Amino acid sequence: MNKQVSELDQGLLVVLSGPSGVGKGTVCAALRERMPELVYSVSATTRQIRAGEQDGVNYFFKQKEDFLKMIENDQLLEWAEYVGNYYGTPREFVKKTLATGKDVILEIEVQGALQVKQKFPEGVFIFLAPPDLKELRSRIVGRGTETEDTVNSRMAVAKEEIELMDNYNYVVVNDQVDLACARIESIITAEHLQKDRQIAKYRKWIKEV
Amino acid sequence: MNKQVSELDQGLLVVLSGPSGVGKGTVCAALRERMPELVYSVSATTRQIRAGEQDGVNYFFKQKEDFLKMIENDQLLEWAEYVGNYYGTPREFVKKTLATGKDVILEIEVQGALQVKQKFPEGVFIFLAPPDLKELRSRIVGRGTETEDTVNSRMAVAKEEIELMDNYNYVVVNDQVDLACARIESIITAEHLQKDRQIAKYRKWIKEV
Repeated sequence: MNKQVSELDQGLLVVLSGPSGVGKGTVCAALRERMPELVYSVSATTRQIRAGEQDGVNYFFKQKEDFLKMIENDQLLEWAEYVGNYYGTPREFVKKTLATGKDVILEIEVQGALQVKQKFPEGVFIFLAPPDLKELRSRIVGRGTETEDTVNSRMAVAKEEIELMDNYNYVVVNDQVDLACARIESIITAEHLQKDRQIAKYRKWIKEV
Repeated sequence: MNKQVSELDQGLLVVLSGPSGVGKGTVCAALRERMPELVYSVSATTRQIRAGEQDGVNYFFKQKEDFLKMIENDQLLEWAEYVGNYYGTPREFVKKTLATGKDVILEIEVQGALQVKQKFPEGVFIFLAPPDLKELRSRIVGRGTETEDTVNSRMAVAKEEIELMDNYNYVVVNDQVDLACARIESIITAEHLQKDRQIAKYRKWIKEV
């Protein structure tokens, strides 16, 4: 079997990321409601399971030594340690889901997204941008009452955020959750319509005749 | 001024093409109704103006010698001769409209689209595919009652159409006009959200501060 064809026939890995506080979680939840066919990537963690949580649904709950083995065996698309606990994205779950032709969504911090990009560059990387970046000029300059220090520090933050975007395929402003979701849905639709994926599908069909 | 930034800040040239009879005209008309902000690229022609037609609206009506000069001076993105008359896409109209930030749509035969791609590779090239390509397998094999010749000739046509797709960025099946339009709208939305265009916009804003 042609490897390239079979890869192009898979689902898409959609990576939704952006600066903290931008509303990734809210947009991701709304998007999943809007597109129930999207499969949410379940993270692995070493933290204790909480009441109401289910293994394999909220997280894959792991012992620390198992988690460290997953890191060692390159079984995680990304991982990080927060306050003594490990969190990561199991490669196997993503791979298996994509192989069924379903799209997977991964909602993740910027540092994690950069790790995923290293290991899975064919993903669709979407940067969720703060709405105030949209009014960059007026925000930075203000009403003429801002000190030079304020203007400079706002400028520095804006520049940092813009440089981050360079690692992504798309930039979506989160000005309104439903608008942001509609834009992401358009991106997913368009990615599926890309020539390479479509030709691969037709070629596969012809082969099967 | 940074040339790259200014180009990325322009509108998109959307080229809608596909095999004859696929319904390009119908889809294009429906799309323009759905997206009134899309500017339709007006062709130049040497044919006689007809009652009810307006110069600059239906066509730019040209004398043959003026048209030949436009070819000579590379002022057409593509051109062709049909039954003694010349038809072509004036580069100037497209360029000026894109410079205002508006998107332009060009509905055109496959040969013309290939010419446009040579001169304007940054366009968004969309191949409108016949709906029966979607049911490729069943159509080619039929109900087991097809002769080998029929199967082979259907296979040949399908393969030709698929090879054509390779020159485009996207493939949209025209199974239903409203679905095809929605897909094209998603493509245009997604193209505007591409990182390079977004970063260029933000960088321009920062520069203007």
